Amino acid sequence: MSRGRRFDWERLQDFCAQVLQRAGAPPAEAEVVAESLVYADLRGVDSHGVARFPIYVRRLEQGMVATGVKLDVEFDGPVVRVDGKNAYGAVVGMRALEAAVATAKRHGCAVVGVKHSNHFGTCAYYAERAIAQDLVFLAMSNASQTMPPYGGARPFLGTNPLCVAAPAGNEVPFLLDMATSVVSRGKIIVAAQRGEPIPLGWAVDKDGRPTTDPHAALAGAVLPLGGAKGYGIAMFIDILAGVLTGAGFGKYVHNMYENWQQPQNVGHLFIAIDIARFMPVEVFKARMDRYIRDLKSEPTAPGVDEILVPGELEARTARLRRQQGIELPDAVAKELADVGKRYGVRLDDAEWTSMKREA
Amino acid sequence: MSRGRRFDWERLQDFCAQVLQRAGAPPAEAEVVAESLVYADLRGVDSHGVARFPIYVRRLEQGMVATGVKLDVEFDGPVVRVDGKNAYGAVVGMRALEAAVATAKRHGCAVVGVKHSNHFGTCAYYAERAIAQDLVFLAMSNASQTMPPYGGARPFLGTNPLCVAAPAGNEVPFLLDMATSVVSRGKIIVAAQRGEPIPLGWAVDKDGRPTTDPHAALAGAVLPLGGAKGYGIAMFIDILAGVLTGAGFGKYVHNMYENWQQPQNVGHLFIAIDIARFMPVEVFKARMDRYIRDLKSEPTAPGVDEILVPGELEARTARLRRQQGIELPDAVAKELADVGKRYGVRLDDAEWTSMKREA
Ligand SMILES: NC(=O)c1ccc[n+]([C@@H]2O[C@H](COP(=O)([O-])OP(=O)(O)OC[C@H]3O[C@@H](n4cnc5c(N)ncnc54)[C@H](O)[C@@H]3O)[C@@H](O)[C@H]2O)c1
Ligand SMILES: NC(=O)c1ccc[n+]([C@@H]2O[C@H](COP(=O)([O-])OP(=O)(O)OC[C@H]3O[C@@H](n4cnc5c(N)ncnc54)[C@H](O)[C@@H]3O)[C@@H](O)[C@H]2O)c1
Repeated sequence: MSRGRRFDWERLQDFCAQVLQRAGAPPAEAEVVAESLVYADLRGVDSHGVARFPIYVRRLEQGMVATGVKLDVEFDGPVVRVDGKNAYGAVVGMRALEAAVATAKRHGCAVVGVKHSNHFGTCAYYAERAIAQDLVFLAMSNASQTMPPYGGARPFLGTNPLCVAAPAGNEVPFLLDMATSVVSRGKIIVAAQRGEPIPLGWAVDKDGRPTTDPHAALAGAVLPLGGAKGYGIAMFIDILAGVLTGAGFGKYVHNMYENWQQPQNVGHLFIAIDIARFMPVEVFKARMDRYIRDLKSEPTAPGVDEILVPGELEARTARLRRQQGIELPDAVAKELADVGKRYGVRLDDAEWTSMKREA
Repeated sequence: MSRGRRFDWERLQDFCAQVLQRAGAPPAEAEVVAESLVYADLRGVDSHGVARFPIYVRRLEQGMVATGVKLDVEFDGPVVRVDGKNAYGAVVGMRALEAAVATAKRHGCAVVGVKHSNHFGTCAYYAERAIAQDLVFLAMSNASQTMPPYGGARPFLGTNPLCVAAPAGNEVPFLLDMATSVVSRGKIIVAAQRGEPIPLGWAVDKDGRPTTDPHAALAGAVLPLGGAKGYGIAMFIDILAGVLTGAGFGKYVHNMYENWQQPQNVGHLFIAIDIARFMPVEVFKARMDRYIRDLKSEPTAPGVDEILVPGELEARTARLRRQQGIELPDAVAKELADVGKRYGVRLDDAEWTSMKREA
């Protein structure tokens, strides 16, 4: 099999953090950005992993992202307003998450609205931490324009992700984390990098025609899931994360690949609910376990082996990749190595060796 | 054209309220239930309108719904716990809505969890009131089992509706209100009542095979929208509205048509956010207006006249039906008339006459 190179997740994370530090980010910020990207790769969400690292670095180099700034966090009872001051999305997201956790523990729930942020990667990165604190958690973010509205001819909405998570007891936790497109734009980027065609129905080209060519699709638009309903979901995320928070919305969220004049002004909205206000956490977890066991023992449709809980596949992939390394497509590895070279950080040092596995 | 009979919305509402009162409901409860049903018909959401009235009455007659009970409402900062005590869903929903509005105004946001409720009709009924109070509002409810999980062979989840709404200034407000199925089960009921086939892809029969026969579909299952993603959305609603609140979830939410032994134990979850905590309401509304104007002036795809905001079509239908009456299919009108007869309330009195229109 001709496959990409494999990397050890911890050393890959070190690589990214090292580069970011040398590019000017304070260690704590470099760490969070690196961790959020590698976390996505660990879970098999390659579309939001280190494949995004080169653009993240480039935006820093071009002064399009701020580092070392003090974010504004205003606590107002269960409501929290965060001004991300154009810091990296993961830095802003983590700060917002901390505020959400503390606030929900104190008041019973939290609504955290964030403006002036940037692309913050995979929502699961924040959600997993929230549910570890026995919270039910909702995260959403808007994004730059990639999807037409229902009935529209060109991109107006982002693939605005929606994430909802809840802890379980012995069973796998519930962790839904999804783009509001039929598939995430990142998957089309990965297909383009791999030189593979995409299925019909994922996207349209720049004239609004259906296409299987990932490059044509990237020049065109991905489609919202489920027609008018997915369009409505993407739009409510833009309203909650963008219009309400004071961030950009619609065309006022700028594209991180294409716009080198303005900050992205992405908005996020987190909602956290303290489970203990409704019932003892152990009771909730027992109810979740029962729910998940009921679900997983349902009869499957012909040809289906197993019913999965959202997040289950990703949890399995993470276990595997922690042990066996993360395989990156050659194009991605090459780009990373090139970025590293500019800062004297060797990607080769992050390569996976069997030593670790046997230890 | 062979069409159904037309009714005046206010008199139709009176008809329903009269019947409910004579069947034993206190006037205020009868009013709310009647209003919520006719409100759905006004907006063209016929699947959740008076077509449900006969089953609502039957459950009352059979002692499966409680009337005249005092609901438990526990205020705990921004968190509110409601025990619906098996009252009508609309009665419980309105109480939960009042709690959500008051709490969000006081604390900045509200999370209202409701257990021991019943089918509460169209979510928009609650959402429209919430946005009139300058709140951003999310409503969800679980429902009895009608959809298979992704990869499953038989119903496990309800078509658990999700509703998100936000006010605008001069433009039409945003009011997304959707079943998490490709289409709502109620639309299949309406097709069955009308004797019309349903499109392929809406549902499977009892053996899991695709079908266009609405009766076969009702014996089988409707499908979640967008595959695994819609399945995940329906599931998070079951978790938030059911597992978290203490209501039923999965198979523990009982079917109002089929189960005559147990209360439904439906759960709802409302989240309300006070816009004023983020920015002056007028600024928010101006931002919404701009967003909606941007959206509506986007170029349309070939064959599409206009880009619509979620809720816009329903708002137009409501305006029209207020003026020109609500047309009901003959089968629905006959069922209503029969129910009325049992209580000496004449449906004929609700028939639409042109007098009103000219007045
Ligand atoms: N920051 C941004 O601007 C942005 C924008 C879009 C997407 N994203 C991120 O992109 C990532 C990928 O999104 P996606 O939509 O491509 O993911 P996906 O389609 O691979 O998965 C979506 C969800 O469905 C679940 N799922 C998939 N198959 C399943 C099955 N067979 N049974 C049960 N559950 C199943 C997954 O566990 C996941 O929770 C997410 O982490 C999201 O946060 C970020
Ligand atoms: N109480 C319950 O148990 C329960 C269960 C399921 C559904 N419901 C209710 O059923 C009702 C109907 O749900 P549905 O999914 O069949 O509705 P639908 O498919 O007709 O519409 C769903 C949403 O999409 C929007 N929409 C539709 N076409 C559009 C277009 N061309 N452009 C822009 N927006 C568009 C609508 O305005 C609406 O907000 C809702 O009121 C819901 O609350 C209730």
